[in-house]
Amino acid sequence: MKRKTIILTEGFTNPHTAKTASSVIRYGNDDVVALLDSTVAGETTQSQLGVGGAIPIVASLDEAPPADLLLLGIAPPGGSIPPSWRTVILEAISRGMDVTAGLHDFLNDDEEFTAAATAHGVTLTDVRQNHERDIARRLGLRGDCLRVLTVGHDCSVGKMLTSIELTKGLCAAGHDAHFIATGQTGIMVSGDGCPIDRVIADFVSGAVEKMILKHQHHDILMIEGQGSLVHPSYSAVTLGLIHGANPQALILVCELGRETITGLDHLRIPPLARIRELNETMASIFQPCPVIGIAVNSRKVSPEEAAAARIRLREEFGLPVCDVVRDGPQDLIEAVLAYRDSNGWRT
Amino acid sequence: MKRKTIILTEGFTNPHTAKTASSVIRYGNDDVVALLDSTVAGETTQSQLGVGGAIPIVASLDEAPPADLLLLGIAPPGGSIPPSWRTVILEAISRGMDVTAGLHDFLNDDEEFTAAATAHGVTLTDVRQNHERDIARRLGLRGDCLRVLTVGHDCSVGKMLTSIELTKGLCAAGHDAHFIATGQTGIMVSGDGCPIDRVIADFVSGAVEKMILKHQHHDILMIEGQGSLVHPSYSAVTLGLIHGANPQALILVCELGRETITGLDHLRIPPLARIRELNETMASIFQPCPVIGIAVNSRKVSPEEAAAARIRLREEFGLPVCDVVRDGPQDLIEAVLAYRDSNGWRT
Repeated sequence: MKRKTIILTEGFTNPHTAKTASSVIRYGNDDVVALLDSTVAGETTQSQLGVGGAIPIVASLDEAPPADLLLLGIAPPGGSIPPSWRTVILEAISRGMDVTAGLHDFLNDDEEFTAAATAHGVTLTDVRQNHERDIARRLGLRGDCLRVLTVGHDCSVGKMLTSIELTKGLCAAGHDAHFIATGQTGIMVSGDGCPIDRVIADFVSGAVEKMILKHQHHDILMIEGQGSLVHPSYSAVTLGLIHGANPQALILVCELGRETITGLDHLRIPPLARIRELNETMASIFQPCPVIGIAVNSRKVSPEEAAAARIRLREEFGLPVCDVVRDGPQDLIEAVLAYRDSNGWRT
Repeated sequence: MKRKTIILTEGFTNPHTAKTASSVIRYGNDDVVALLDSTVAGETTQSQLGVGGAIPIVASLDEAPPADLLLLGIAPPGGSIPPSWRTVILEAISRGMDVTAGLHDFLNDDEEFTAAATAHGVTLTDVRQNHERDIARRLGLRGDCLRVLTVGHDCSVGKMLTSIELTKGLCAAGHDAHFIATGQTGIMVSGDGCPIDRVIADFVSGAVEKMILKHQHHDILMIEGQGSLVHPSYSAVTLGLIHGANPQALILVCELGRETITGLDHLRIPPLARIRELNETMASIFQPCPVIGIAVNSRKVSPEEAAAARIRLREEFGLPVCDVVRDGPQDLIEAVLAYRDSNGWRT
């Protein structure tokens, strides 16, 4: 049954910070009835996040339609609950709404929240909660299941979105593809997966490998990437994912206009050719794993600039390039299918 | 005050598995009065682990001298307490001994252990317990503090031992060097540090960076390496450490005769030249970070084979090479000092 959902993004309603909100609106199974942010109340999610059509942005729960669920729609660095959000979370609980969050701070570790939830009979869900304790073994992987991982030149560039769009496109064309969620938002929209950045470091690759083994009866696994090998804060997660997923192909995701590492403005992102090389190097230690296509996120630039960049990147890399939102994912879907048919990866 | 310590390695008394025991005997501040392993009782730690002289191996606590502390002396994959050890742990607690462990399974999460500890007034210490929640920021690093990280061609090859021997040698020669412990054994012997393989993946590099910022008033930091970039189970920890420590130089540690990845016998370790290249590549994304010397662990081979390998590696890599135990660390100490004096790293 679809739940009526209000997404809380108070003070953070922009496409970068509120990527959980955007993705739940774009891909989620529940009905989003409002977004709650008093700083942009009266607007729509379409005008602020570029998705969701007429979904209203409201200033308080009083102004929102009745709903079953409050979903916390941001994923800030460090993953803490903004202190100012406590009041609205408690108010939602007192109205009988369940609350779902994907932060490192767990709702269920907060005594005030859990006491209120018990009193009002509602459920608090922490999507990042996990108890992973298995190391990767590199055994039992099915040789003819094609594992395609998205990697990025930075964090928050569109790796999840790319993996989902390619999965949907492949399935629509009659192929047996499956999306593997590795982060809180991917889990919220797909209902399955593991929040690997919240796993104890020794068990990251083991947690990923377990998901692969569980789903490798599908022909093609499209695995959601995390972070970036060149992001000093999150590269541990990225490499654990690469070595746990053991992909045979990578899709490189980048955003036009992104110059510096997210959150570390003093560090310039290395050239894309270098990013490609680093990812292929680290994914190819025990078997070949090339980048087979580039997904370019061009939301910050004009259609003309986007088209020019697409041509330029195609020429520089000799690979299919598209913006899966602006252009549709067809070029990358064809790249995946051509690679699958090449047999080069069945080693 | 020195505590009298009994080390428990029941069934696991060999240099590879009992590396915590070996290192505590070699470098710890407490007095090790016995090692407990009924399967090799009557032997000495010297004969079984190559260290500790006449320290006896006993079959039970009854046969051991009185002691203040039981220390769990192994670090198995996954880090669980062997079920057969429960009896002796409870017996030690009932005798009023404190218990220290470095496993992923915490003594303090075990109701039977904590109840017994409370009843007998003893302390259970879990060295791997941590609450790290900061991401790496790459800010505030002191430009003229030389950070030297050990990296390995596999896990458990002697990275901690190399870092400690170099620190001791540098300090003995009058230099201001400091050892940074990143694993449970390093913490046990140095009394400080962070067990980074037990940190939530998002915060591994942040936890390392915090230690660097805390200790960078020293001239030279010798940072204990973890895992290996080519070990699919643990590479997340390794890369988080590299990017959190942000070293300007690496010491590459390898063991002669090691052919396959520890715990993953179906995977061959890539050639050492490739290992060097991978580590330099991933450590040099934002600044140069070369391998400046090779520490070769030659305990499995004859003195003649060790000497030949040392010459061969020197020629192949054009770098100082030594076994810090067999040959002493002098060549690598000189390599660190020459690199420090080169000024090439102060960028």
